[in-house]
Amino acid sequence: MSKKLVLAFSGGLDTSFCVKYLKEEKGYDVYTAIANTGGFSDEELKAIEERALALGAVEHITLDVTNEYYEKCIRYMVFGNVLRNNTYPISVSSERAFQAIAIIEYAKEIGAQYIAHGSTGAGNDQIRFDLTFQVLAPEIEIITPTRDMLLTRQYEIDYLKKYGFEADFTKMEYSINQGLWGTSVGGKETLTTDKNLPEEAYPSQLEATEPKTIELGFEKGELVSLDGEFYENGPDVIRALEDVASKYAIGRDTHVGDTIIGIKGRVGFEAAAPLITIKAHHLLEKHTLTKWQSYWKEQLGNWYGMFLHEAMYQEPVMRNIEDFLESTQENVTGKVIVKLRPYNFELVGIESEHDLMNSGFGQYGETVEAWTADDVKGFTKILANSLKIYNKVNGNL
Amino acid sequence: MSKKLVLAFSGGLDTSFCVKYLKEEKGYDVYTAIANTGGFSDEELKAIEERALALGAVEHITLDVTNEYYEKCIRYMVFGNVLRNNTYPISVSSERAFQAIAIIEYAKEIGAQYIAHGSTGAGNDQIRFDLTFQVLAPEIEIITPTRDMLLTRQYEIDYLKKYGFEADFTKMEYSINQGLWGTSVGGKETLTTDKNLPEEAYPSQLEATEPKTIELGFEKGELVSLDGEFYENGPDVIRALEDVASKYAIGRDTHVGDTIIGIKGRVGFEAAAPLITIKAHHLLEKHTLTKWQSYWKEQLGNWYGMFLHEAMYQEPVMRNIEDFLESTQENVTGKVIVKLRPYNFELVGIESEHDLMNSGFGQYGETVEAWTADDVKGFTKILANSLKIYNKVNGNL
Amino acid sequence: MSKKLVLAFSGGLDTSFCVKYLKEEKGYDVYTAIANTGGFSDEELKAIEERALALGAVEHITLDVTNEYYEKCIRYMVFGNVLRNNTYPISVSSERAFQAIAIIEYAKEIGAQYIAHGSTGAGNDQIRFDLTFQVLAPEIEIITPTRDMLLTRQYEIDYLKKYGFEADFTKMEYSINQGLWGTSVGGKETLTTDKNLPEEAYPSQLEATEPKTIELGFEKGELVSLDGEFYENGPDVIRALEDVASKYAIGRDTHVGDTIIGIKGRVGFEAAAPLITIKAHHLLEKHTLTKWQSYWKEQLGNWYGMFLHEAMYQEPVMRNIEDFLESTQENVTGKVIVKLRPYNFELVGIESEHDLMNSGFGQYGETVEAWTADDVKGFTKILANSLKIYNKVNGNL
Amino acid sequence: MSKKLVLAFSGGLDTSFCVKYLKEEKGYDVYTAIANTGGFSDEELKAIEERALALGAVEHITLDVTNEYYEKCIRYMVFGNVLRNNTYPISVSSERAFQAIAIIEYAKEIGAQYIAHGSTGAGNDQIRFDLTFQVLAPEIEIITPTRDMLLTRQYEIDYLKKYGFEADFTKMEYSINQGLWGTSVGGKETLTTDKNLPEEAYPSQLEATEPKTIELGFEKGELVSLDGEFYENGPDVIRALEDVASKYAIGRDTHVGDTIIGIKGRVGFEAAAPLITIKAHHLLEKHTLTKWQSYWKEQLGNWYGMFLHEAMYQEPVMRNIEDFLESTQENVTGKVIVKLRPYNFELVGIESEHDLMNSGFGQYGETVEAWTADDVKGFTKILANSLKIYNKVNGNL
Repeated sequence: MSKKLVLAFSGGLDTSFCVKYLKEEKGYDVYTAIANTGGFSDEELKAIEERALALGAVEHITLDVTNEYYEKCIRYMVFGNVLRNNTYPISVSSERAFQAIAIIEYAKEIGAQYIAHGSTGAGNDQIRFDLTFQVLAPEIEIITPTRDMLLTRQYEIDYLKKYGFEADFTKMEYSINQGLWGTSVGGKETLTTDKNLPEEAYPSQLEATEPKTIELGFEKGELVSLDGEFYENGPDVIRALEDVASKYAIGRDTHVGDTIIGIKGRVGFEAAAPLITIKAHHLLEKHTLTKWQSYWKEQLGNWYGMFLHEAMYQEPVMRNIEDFLESTQENVTGKVIVKLRPYNFELVGIESEHDLMNSGFGQYGETVEAWTADDVKGFTKILANSLKIYNKVNGNL
Repeated sequence: MSKKLVLAFSGGLDTSFCVKYLKEEKGYDVYTAIANTGGFSDEELKAIEERALALGAVEHITLDVTNEYYEKCIRYMVFGNVLRNNTYPISVSSERAFQAIAIIEYAKEIGAQYIAHGSTGAGNDQIRFDLTFQVLAPEIEIITPTRDMLLTRQYEIDYLKKYGFEADFTKMEYSINQGLWGTSVGGKETLTTDKNLPEEAYPSQLEATEPKTIELGFEKGELVSLDGEFYENGPDVIRALEDVASKYAIGRDTHVGDTIIGIKGRVGFEAAAPLITIKAHHLLEKHTLTKWQSYWKEQLGNWYGMFLHEAMYQEPVMRNIEDFLESTQENVTGKVIVKLRPYNFELVGIESEHDLMNSGFGQYGETVEAWTADDVKGFTKILANSLKIYNKVNGNL
Repeated sequence: MSKKLVLAFSGGLDTSFCVKYLKEEKGYDVYTAIANTGGFSDEELKAIEERALALGAVEHITLDVTNEYYEKCIRYMVFGNVLRNNTYPISVSSERAFQAIAIIEYAKEIGAQYIAHGSTGAGNDQIRFDLTFQVLAPEIEIITPTRDMLLTRQYEIDYLKKYGFEADFTKMEYSINQGLWGTSVGGKETLTTDKNLPEEAYPSQLEATEPKTIELGFEKGELVSLDGEFYENGPDVIRALEDVASKYAIGRDTHVGDTIIGIKGRVGFEAAAPLITIKAHHLLEKHTLTKWQSYWKEQLGNWYGMFLHEAMYQEPVMRNIEDFLESTQENVTGKVIVKLRPYNFELVGIESEHDLMNSGFGQYGETVEAWTADDVKGFTKILANSLKIYNKVNGNL
Repeated sequence: MSKKLVLAFSGGLDTSFCVKYLKEEKGYDVYTAIANTGGFSDEELKAIEERALALGAVEHITLDVTNEYYEKCIRYMVFGNVLRNNTYPISVSSERAFQAIAIIEYAKEIGAQYIAHGSTGAGNDQIRFDLTFQVLAPEIEIITPTRDMLLTRQYEIDYLKKYGFEADFTKMEYSINQGLWGTSVGGKETLTTDKNLPEEAYPSQLEATEPKTIELGFEKGELVSLDGEFYENGPDVIRALEDVASKYAIGRDTHVGDTIIGIKGRVGFEAAAPLITIKAHHLLEKHTLTKWQSYWKEQLGNWYGMFLHEAMYQEPVMRNIEDFLESTQENVTGKVIVKLRPYNFELVGIESEHDLMNSGFGQYGETVEAWTADDVKGFTKILANSLKIYNKVNGNL
């Protein structure tokens, strides 16, 4: 009887080893699958497919979930101005949930009894894969050779060589994970606590030095245009913005945070488009939302980011938070002017018909007609009531 | 019978007018007072005193509350990583509470029946003064000619001229408010929504272009040293940092926020030392606090900033939040390395004996000995329980 | 030229005085309006109308907003389990917003230039009326004789008598405000801090002593049936429940809280149906929602109640919170069994196909098959990681 | 070489089996320990000791941590008005952390290499023991035969009989856990979702029917006196209150909640003293704290309860929250009058010199002198600003 197994395949050393090992030593029929959330080019996907088949996969499939990832996740991260620990746009890690969902659904579709991934035992990704797989298909058994066997790179390379498979698996000095919502870079300096990655560790390099002003258009909280050009779907405008902004080496930083398994982790990232989009969106909200909308958005957006990061995308409360966030975006429509400079950017200002500052109502610090000095005196007097009472009763006078 | 009045005097046109007007037209004995929270030099204070006496003040006093402001406010803003709306270190506005407290206490001390300030009717400062005065001395009447009379600058200048007082009251293009915790700049562009202040509107100009690495030392959350040099009191190390960093034109931004009176306001600021201190402190916390300490600090720090900004410094909950924040700082001790660059800075890393990353316990993404693959599988399995149950019961499978 | 004024008329002494006074002394054309949110019977409304016309109102109108109040407010209070200060179902006060909205819309419809209400200057209702009027019709001037003139009851009675109007305005020992969502009772004891209202102060009296078990049916969070009988609209099932439960003198308590104007207030209330509905709904949620859905519902429901109580129903964030709350109710469907007893009730249990306890998955404290002892050990080990690291680093061992 | 093992011993069937089994089959030197947090009488402790020794324990120790449990936990639960899920005073479960701490510290003291407990694999207690043991002594191995071997009661009884040990281990219909902060009762009905425990399942029975008024005295948030009699240490006044109140069968309810392992659990409890203490304390706070103190206390108290329940007592944020809670209690001093009735109680009122209602400042709904009608109008006008602007800009008028 056949043992059908779907392997989440990236083409790297670990998952290449898994194809061979699971087929040869364990006798599985290995179906490889890669879920693209926008981080791979067609050429890369083609090469990955070829490698999978060369390694002995029964079949290889590329699942394109870019639009789903955008619609069901990136939109809400923008609505929520989600920056983990006030820094990190949850670049690559938010993609994992959608990759895991696509792959487990494929596994169910083809009637696989097993599902495998190549994550190691010290990171967040293993939880993201395991949890999603278990929740969506508790009946499918999870197989994780890399995590279970604690193998060295050399062992894996030798094993593959034994089977006549000699690809270039040179260990890169830095491990780089490219995605639609940013690229993470780990290695060497990120394992210390007092050094940052050197410039050359980042995929994008500083090419432009002359400041440049761009204009982002938002409709109900979504980025829809760049410099007046409208894009039909979300991923395209993000890519267009990334093209322009990455030349300025914008959006690089180091994220220090708590992993799901309780240890601290440190990782570099570059995410020009996500950073600019979120900060521009936030500025537009400062002009179009009330104080208390902003207040509650911050609470719920923060939690949304935490749960997304921690593999809890399936929690029902996430759907409720998404509904809340969407509800707040009704008037978040307008343009944001941004000036790009080497390594950073400046939010210049906004234009919006929902701008609560342009109300012709009264201007901060200027003479106003909408209320009188006496109104403010009354306001302050009443506002002071509880504090006066407190002082009177508790004798602090 | 004498009518003793204390006027919060800044030396500007509005309060100069007030001295004369309150004395001549209303017959008050005007005592002028200025509370310095670190924003004025000795020369400036001297000049202000001379002007007050020249205008006819019975007496002028300078109240130095720099240390009190630092101890009772700046410390907590650093503990709480307080940035209003994720941007603004509440530069000048946080100083108002302490100026108001010092002045109302002086008024009580000398037995004044009246207290006056020169704020207009469209800003936050009027509330900060009124509220503090009322809460701490409800028996003293508040007098506010500028707000009540809606006078033009020309009227005030002419009035003073009539009494032979001709100072240089040229209206500056930008209104600048310098303080220990930053400088705010308003005018022209800040009244629009789509333009930022030009470079030349800021008091500090870019002078240094060569990147420079500095080292900030923290002890239990407080900044205590710069590049290895220790400072006995807080304001001094802030000034030393400002000296170095302002040459890089760091910490400039535009704050868009909600005023206490419900309208939106926009103001430019430069605050190199505050921004660097807060961001460096926050990084140190990411290494030394647990996830949930950071989580709750963010909630309470955010609220602390809001209430500080909104004149609610006297609210008893502020004392409770201060106790909470102080309680979290026990292990926030160590060095933070910062690289200054024109217009921005990079947090390079930290060194701390309380660093939770350097535990020899297991490293993010690396092989570990503190737990096994099976432990993580068990963890994930249990973590998935509630979601599996939810799906099973609600038939989403 | 005519001066058209709409007066929110309740038929009590204050508003009766207002009709006469505004017509005779001020020359307004007084249009009286009462907005019924379910607290008045047809007979009472008829009597109120007759009194208005007798006092000289040009026209009187009864605006029935019971269903609107239920759809736009009570539903959400149930979804949010809203009990102000953990006690008070915001009985009468939540109705004010809807009464104010109905009346100001009527005023706009008939082109009134003025709008009046009879609230005094020391309560919450004045803010609720003023704020709603101002926000929805800033162009209509607000007139409040009772608040402005600080009149005594005797003066008002004498004034009405002078104009030949002698109704029975005996001051009740307790001021009672009956509404669909409960009845508030103030007076005498509620002005102290150490005494509660006596039994006889409450409109409902204990009539039933034999315990009685009833069954409440909920659909997506809404109460839809009582003892198997379904009701088409919300107010009817609330009334049916109130009929049964009020005989047990259930739902009486004293609310101590902060008024909008900063002083503490104390008021008695009886609200059998609201209390039972909210507690039963909450129990059903404990069985059908996840931990984090409950957590966030509590935060947002609490805020919703606070803003509703404090006249901020118009705040846009309230619409966002309503969307959140509605989103959480998808599976809150089932029956709740409640046992009524004199003065209190017991929640016996629930039946629901969405019950997360009946999953056949594993039972609290019993032997389970869904996970093993090793899974839990792994779970605990990983869960302990951050704390072990903290202890190791900070030497607390 | 000796294998020293400390077993958390309760005297029940599971831990009795453990003594014998660990000694005979596994060759451990078994040291038994019981940590009393106030739930056991001297007689019970004596009987437990005798059983341990009879079963072959090398040594048995009783660790009295009642006062520590009170000082480090109950106090804060009262400060925070902690009721899990708005219902459950976290009766027995909060004691586990302190029992686990005492036992692991004893194990370290005597140099044990092993520590054992008898919890099963489907409850919360296993996590509470495991986690505390691991965090405080990661070097000591945890042994859990009951959880690992999935034994039946009959097997355990037969095994003990084989070794000549025949105690009365009749399975009680209900499993009862008595503690200082309440008693939990599980079994039969609590495994359903639609039935409550019958009266006779509770240890206390209704004995008193005549209403009785009692007076609780609080000092800085702590219960210190009952009916004028002061108690030196906290546990004593709790016991005195329990003696009076349990005769009324007060404080019975069913807790439905989320276990640490993700399944829903249901348990009955009776906790007269805890319920009355918390509710009385809360009422006193409503009179003595400001609105925002209450608001933030609710957030943090709620979290404190959740983490306590979920075995996270060691989290550093718990110490920060305790500092916050203590900081809020400065003025929570006074008397609370409570009327006891069969099955429930009524909070009659309070007396406190810190009562913010008795300020002579203005009384809710009455005529006041501290502010004027115009003050309130001004207040409302300014308060309406942001909403008016929103409506004007967004064209909802």
